Amino acid sequence: MKKKTRPERKRRRNIGSVPGTMTYTGVRPQEETRIELIDYDRDRCTHKLFDRVDEVLSFCKGPGTSWVNVSGLQNVKAIETLGRQLNWHPLVLEGIVDIYQRPKVDEFEDYLFVVFKMLYYQDEKLIIEHLSLVMGQGYVITFQEEPQHDVFGDLRKRITENRGRVRSEKSDYLLFVLLDAVVDHYFLVAETLGDKLEDIEDQLFEDSAKQDLSKDILVLKKEILRMKRSVFPVREIVSRIEKTNSVLIGSQVKNFYRDLYDHAIQVVEYIEMYREMTMSLMEMYMSTISNRMNNVMRVLTVIATIFIPLTFIVGVYGMNFDHMPELHGKYNYFVLLGLMLLIFIGMLIYFRRKKWL
Amino acid sequence: MKKKTRPERKRRRNIGSVPGTMTYTGVRPQEETRIELIDYDRDRCTHKLFDRVDEVLSFCKGPGTSWVNVSGLQNVKAIETLGRQLNWHPLVLEGIVDIYQRPKVDEFEDYLFVVFKMLYYQDEKLIIEHLSLVMGQGYVITFQEEPQHDVFGDLRKRITENRGRVRSEKSDYLLFVLLDAVVDHYFLVAETLGDKLEDIEDQLFEDSAKQDLSKDILVLKKEILRMKRSVFPVREIVSRIEKTNSVLIGSQVKNFYRDLYDHAIQVVEYIEMYREMTMSLMEMYMSTISNRMNNVMRVLTVIATIFIPLTFIVGVYGMNFDHMPELHGKYNYFVLLGLMLLIFIGMLIYFRRKKWL
Amino acid sequence: MKKKTRPERKRRRNIGSVPGTMTYTGVRPQEETRIELIDYDRDRCTHKLFDRVDEVLSFCKGPGTSWVNVSGLQNVKAIETLGRQLNWHPLVLEGIVDIYQRPKVDEFEDYLFVVFKMLYYQDEKLIIEHLSLVMGQGYVITFQEEPQHDVFGDLRKRITENRGRVRSEKSDYLLFVLLDAVVDHYFLVAETLGDKLEDIEDQLFEDSAKQDLSKDILVLKKEILRMKRSVFPVREIVSRIEKTNSVLIGSQVKNFYRDLYDHAIQVVEYIEMYREMTMSLMEMYMSTISNRMNNVMRVLTVIATIFIPLTFIVGVYGMNFDHMPELHGKYNYFVLLGLMLLIFIGMLIYFRRKKWL
Amino acid sequence: MKKKTRPERKRRRNIGSVPGTMTYTGVRPQEETRIELIDYDRDRCTHKLFDRVDEVLSFCKGPGTSWVNVSGLQNVKAIETLGRQLNWHPLVLEGIVDIYQRPKVDEFEDYLFVVFKMLYYQDEKLIIEHLSLVMGQGYVITFQEEPQHDVFGDLRKRITENRGRVRSEKSDYLLFVLLDAVVDHYFLVAETLGDKLEDIEDQLFEDSAKQDLSKDILVLKKEILRMKRSVFPVREIVSRIEKTNSVLIGSQVKNFYRDLYDHAIQVVEYIEMYREMTMSLMEMYMSTISNRMNNVMRVLTVIATIFIPLTFIVGVYGMNFDHMPELHGKYNYFVLLGLMLLIFIGMLIYFRRKKWL
Amino acid sequence: MKKKTRPERKRRRNIGSVPGTMTYTGVRPQEETRIELIDYDRDRCTHKLFDRVDEVLSFCKGPGTSWVNVSGLQNVKAIETLGRQLNWHPLVLEGIVDIYQRPKVDEFEDYLFVVFKMLYYQDEKLIIEHLSLVMGQGYVITFQEEPQHDVFGDLRKRITENRGRVRSEKSDYLLFVLLDAVVDHYFLVAETLGDKLEDIEDQLFEDSAKQDLSKDILVLKKEILRMKRSVFPVREIVSRIEKTNSVLIGSQVKNFYRDLYDHAIQVVEYIEMYREMTMSLMEMYMSTISNRMNNVMRVLTVIATIFIPLTFIVGVYGMNFDHMPELHGKYNYFVLLGLMLLIFIGMLIYFRRKKWL
Repeated sequence: MKKKTRPERKRRRNIGSVPGTMTYTGVRPQEETRIELIDYDRDRCTHKLFDRVDEVLSFCKGPGTSWVNVSGLQNVKAIETLGRQLNWHPLVLEGIVDIYQRPKVDEFEDYLFVVFKMLYYQDEKLIIEHLSLVMGQGYVITFQEEPQHDVFGDLRKRITENRGRVRSEKSDYLLFVLLDAVVDHYFLVAETLGDKLEDIEDQLFEDSAKQDLSKDILVLKKEILRMKRSVFPVREIVSRIEKTNSVLIGSQVKNFYRDLYDHAIQVVEYIEMYREMTMSLMEMYMSTISNRMNNVMRVLTVIATIFIPLTFIVGVYGMNFDHMPELHGKYNYFVLLGLMLLIFIGMLIYFRRKKWL
Repeated sequence: MKKKTRPERKRRRNIGSVPGTMTYTGVRPQEETRIELIDYDRDRCTHKLFDRVDEVLSFCKGPGTSWVNVSGLQNVKAIETLGRQLNWHPLVLEGIVDIYQRPKVDEFEDYLFVVFKMLYYQDEKLIIEHLSLVMGQGYVITFQEEPQHDVFGDLRKRITENRGRVRSEKSDYLLFVLLDAVVDHYFLVAETLGDKLEDIEDQLFEDSAKQDLSKDILVLKKEILRMKRSVFPVREIVSRIEKTNSVLIGSQVKNFYRDLYDHAIQVVEYIEMYREMTMSLMEMYMSTISNRMNNVMRVLTVIATIFIPLTFIVGVYGMNFDHMPELHGKYNYFVLLGLMLLIFIGMLIYFRRKKWL
Repeated sequence: MKKKTRPERKRRRNIGSVPGTMTYTGVRPQEETRIELIDYDRDRCTHKLFDRVDEVLSFCKGPGTSWVNVSGLQNVKAIETLGRQLNWHPLVLEGIVDIYQRPKVDEFEDYLFVVFKMLYYQDEKLIIEHLSLVMGQGYVITFQEEPQHDVFGDLRKRITENRGRVRSEKSDYLLFVLLDAVVDHYFLVAETLGDKLEDIEDQLFEDSAKQDLSKDILVLKKEILRMKRSVFPVREIVSRIEKTNSVLIGSQVKNFYRDLYDHAIQVVEYIEMYREMTMSLMEMYMSTISNRMNNVMRVLTVIATIFIPLTFIVGVYGMNFDHMPELHGKYNYFVLLGLMLLIFIGMLIYFRRKKWL
Repeated sequence: MKKKTRPERKRRRNIGSVPGTMTYTGVRPQEETRIELIDYDRDRCTHKLFDRVDEVLSFCKGPGTSWVNVSGLQNVKAIETLGRQLNWHPLVLEGIVDIYQRPKVDEFEDYLFVVFKMLYYQDEKLIIEHLSLVMGQGYVITFQEEPQHDVFGDLRKRITENRGRVRSEKSDYLLFVLLDAVVDHYFLVAETLGDKLEDIEDQLFEDSAKQDLSKDILVLKKEILRMKRSVFPVREIVSRIEKTNSVLIGSQVKNFYRDLYDHAIQVVEYIEMYREMTMSLMEMYMSTISNRMNNVMRVLTVIATIFIPLTFIVGVYGMNFDHMPELHGKYNYFVLLGLMLLIFIGMLIYFRRKKWL
Repeated sequence: MKKKTRPERKRRRNIGSVPGTMTYTGVRPQEETRIELIDYDRDRCTHKLFDRVDEVLSFCKGPGTSWVNVSGLQNVKAIETLGRQLNWHPLVLEGIVDIYQRPKVDEFEDYLFVVFKMLYYQDEKLIIEHLSLVMGQGYVITFQEEPQHDVFGDLRKRITENRGRVRSEKSDYLLFVLLDAVVDHYFLVAETLGDKLEDIEDQLFEDSAKQDLSKDILVLKKEILRMKRSVFPVREIVSRIEKTNSVLIGSQVKNFYRDLYDHAIQVVEYIEMYREMTMSLMEMYMSTISNRMNNVMRVLTVIATIFIPLTFIVGVYGMNFDHMPELHGKYNYFVLLGLMLLIFIGMLIYFRRKKWL
């Protein structure tokens, strides 16, 4: 099984290809690309599914704000068509389908290109999904790897049910709420990691049951490191959007980005704290192992220290010398038994004083 | 019990809600929101309790300086009313009731919004209480989670009894003394942590009694990390207030903020020092365990090394061979006993030379 | 064998020589210097091998873009001839043949000098090959240590087969695709390191087989450190090319350099993550050793604790006292056997409760 | 005794007091405040002791340069009087008597306020004494906690005996020589710490004698951390004095401050090196403990491995079976003894090969 | 011996002396100060030794470039004379003879003062020698502690034999080649440290021979730390010379300083890598110790676990009960021997399965 995953992984990254080439580098199976459109202004809201990419173009260019959500990156052609019609840079198109693309923001004259990573737990595993957002005048188009899971469920309802101010705002605010939803889920993941940390901690203090916690700690550490890699660049990205002088981001909305920046810093702080905690846990686990070994050794030492000398004594009187005067007294056997009892008790007292018992 | 705390924690943060939504994210039980007003100028001072928020508004807008202290964040409506009337930004209102809000300062045209964390020990536990301060021309309004505890006891007395210069100054100085009181309590908490560190250190050197100190060290480390997260942003906040060019902060008062900045750095230094000390303690604890194990092993080895060969010797003369000439001499038994005594003494001398005894 | 590598290594660096002296500091055996030329524009492409350096000069100065790839640095004379004719600074010439030269970029008025390190695995060993690139108007000349291996195979095909946009672009884009090919191979190496890390991790969890993994971890760590030293400066170099105001780099091409910068950061992140992982692996390995020792000790303790007291008991009844009443009852022997069985079972129960069995 | 120090410590810091309040926060017993004046110019020098603060004021304002050294901070009133007459800011006065004040420099229009920490060893203990310096036109006034010890002995002589250039310079140079004397003593303390480090190192390599060095290492580490906290801010302070554009510091004298800055960096480097060394020492101590345990275990294992099988063999021939043919041969006993000797020798050879003996 | 070095060390640094005082702070014995002059221009070269300092002054001020090399700092007077005549600042003179002076560069109007540390190995010990360079128009004067060793041997030959371009350049290039020679020797030292690291590593993997490698690792670490302290400031110094706008450094020569800067960074990278490697080695050494202990324990456990139960069994049949039916069967003894053989073989199989054998 191991052998199978490795070569696969190597195939994914498109090394040696022409820069700007669009190749889907993920491993998700081929699925229909699903296109979802929410087109709204203050007074109305349309929520539709489409099969073909060019059908949504008229909405993007029309009045009102359009959120187009494209799920499934395998259909590279469709995305390319869309990009060409909206006049995007080839590297933007490559970044949309290259799941190894690092989170970043690129400003172009009439659109912003943002790459984020969506994080969520699915079947107890941390999933990192590649998410690209292109914001232009009047539209935000998001690209995600698969349609089953995303972090925008609440947001869809808020728009269609006209809760909050999103319906009264433009596409710059829409971009903010989308990014905000992603960052909000970082907190959920961070909390799950925090719970796992506490579980391990509880098991450490229980001091029995499971033998080897180092594996759990290592697995947790790897999840924290993976999360760190996805989340750390977010601070700088949000800060750059906040400080941009692109006309695409209204000055009113920048307050919200400042708030988002704050949240991004907070997630980073959590991750740093968790990293430090895993290190402490590992140390504590080491000390727990040593403590247990100490206890085992103490038992062995107490038993051996008491009985080895006694066994020597009884060995002495098991010798077959012709002349051993002690053997012949009537009560000598009982005297010896009493003596050994005294030694035994003396040892017990000694060990209790040394706090070994 | 564990199962109960976890889901609770997850419920607290308001993920998926509209940005700018006011939701109290803390866990304190529903209580009456208490409004306390201290309105003063150089010559007079009014100290009153109110039930409704709008009753204090006239004081805020009136002459003199007003300190309004709102305890209890559950009553979101009341806070919203207040905020609307003073024309605050929705994100300010959200930040006041969101106890997960990181410490920060936001400058607006006619008011400053500061978020701090109050730290104090209650029933041996480190409590972190969310504190928001809004300073405008002629007023400072503080919001805290609960009325029972705060760190402003001394300050109330100083104002009502007209000690210090606070009565002769404006709201910018009032903001300073409020923040100063919070930072002063950081020192108290830091000192408690320092005492705990020394307690653990003393126990390490006592080398008996309690078996497992790693738990205490871990718990302490978690408190230090929690404190760090609350205190670290304070440096930057105070520095930004000091360097602001907002008209709200008079240049005279900035000297005091500079002093406060100094204190903030000092707390941070304490925390860093304590973190380093916990690491050293953990190392020392590990070496203590190893040392103890060493002692246990030495006892075992001494006993075993002395008696196992002797037991072998007496075993030899316990064999039942027909022809064992040594068994028949009259004094052979005593000769053997003497020989074994010599071996015994020789071993003792050897071990004493090796410093094992 | 050890003795042989050390003095060799010392001889390599040319200490004490005149600065600007061209000395090949590598250890590869003397080989023919091979000169490869690809001269192209949008419509045509020439791919030739040459023996003498001056034959390619006319192409460099001619129309179209020329990529001259010089393999083999032992022939210092030839490189010097080339450099003189193109009017390069002596330190550039020294840097081309000094394989200890750190990665860097130097801007001159009419050419750019870039030093990179090519990384690839060959026979399971990480090879770091010195690569210098000089870009002028209309040409890029690359110098590498040996002709057998490089990372430009795909690129050659792309140019000759006219895939991608390289044929329609100038030498600034050619420099980019060359550097891009090198950085792409960093990912391959990083993935190999990642696989090795996982292999070690798997072996750690298997908990048997190979005894000493610390050597593997140390070897891996050394490869990571070597890679780090080659790759870290790349970030700054690419960033400086992107921000240069030299006329040699067109503003159109800078977008691609920005993308390359992103990749460079990503490799650095991988390396940092791997470094942290090796540390965790070492810790885990230590805890694994301790755990194993614990298991060994537990077996010893269980066996000794059960049988040492029993052996004492049977020793008692092996003594030869004249008066030992217990010896004479008819069933006493069986009573004693039963008693010892009870002790034995009692001990088993005790150890099972302690989770030692 | 522990119980006594803790509450005391808590009382010292003046939490809750009005900012700008002058309270001596140290623990030194009440003593007479001693005022020492050295008033000099190129041609004359007066060295006197005074009881009252106002007596020195005329010297400060007079011609020549005055160094006033006030020892003993308990007499807050006197210091306040002095400060008022020289028109100092209340926070300066608070800083002079608050021994928790961090090292800093504050520039005012007509005076500079510098806080340093004097470090010296007294009775084998590291003493940190609070030192404040106020430099104005024509005077430097220093405040220290106690008169018995300071670091200015050499300096006094240099002034009164007119060695060096101090008599020909102004108060800016006097401030420099005072700070220089303090920093010089940092080196003395650093060297003492270095000696202690080497002592511990020597003890580690002696491998006998004292059992537990971890306590010594921890104590040393705490001294290093305390010193670090006092010394680290000095770099920035000196650098700020050097770069000030206050008219109080002449441009000629700035060269000297640059030199002092160099020294400050050097002390910091020492401290960092010592910190790293303590960590290495702790690691080495751990490895020493493990090595010792290894030796103990080896002895145990050798003895047990040799004699346990032999004891089994003699046990076999101690059994009382009716039919044990080996028991009856005439030389069987000697054959067995020889066999056991062979086993014994074989074991010895085996262990010597394994380097256990 | 220890007692002797400590007080000595304390005496060296001239604490309490007047700033600007020239005191030789090293420990080398009094020797003749040797003055060596190489005066050259493109066409001629004079190489002479002098006894008195003032004899070289005419060369310095004359045409051509003069390199004056003063070996031996004990003769403070001579150096002072030289400095006075060339009008140097007192702190420059102090810095020349104070071997505790940190590496630095000070720019004056008509000369540059550079302090470096020469590093070389002598009798297996790392020697750090204080080196000062003063460069003025037409001359460079170097001061080193002793005449026997320096790092300029190659350079002398290059000048006298007119190799390289040094003869055609001015004093700014001479300063460069001098510093370059020093930095080149840093690489030699770094390589020696690298060899030592590898030696320790090889010994670790040999797993026998020398018992305690922690001492070697600690000694190596101390050398690395000492080297670090000497080498780290070099980067900044060279960078400041490169960026200076002093007329003393020609713009042509700055390219060479840029190259030197590169080398300085490279040495620093080596040192950082070695530091990290020593840490890894220490960890590996710890794991090696633990592994060895594990092996020792396994042997003990296997022997004890096999023979302790068997010894119990033979003990049973050594008891003297009157009624022990098993003793009387004819073949019971052999049955028991067989049984014990089975137990023995069973144990062996069990341990082999557990990979303990």
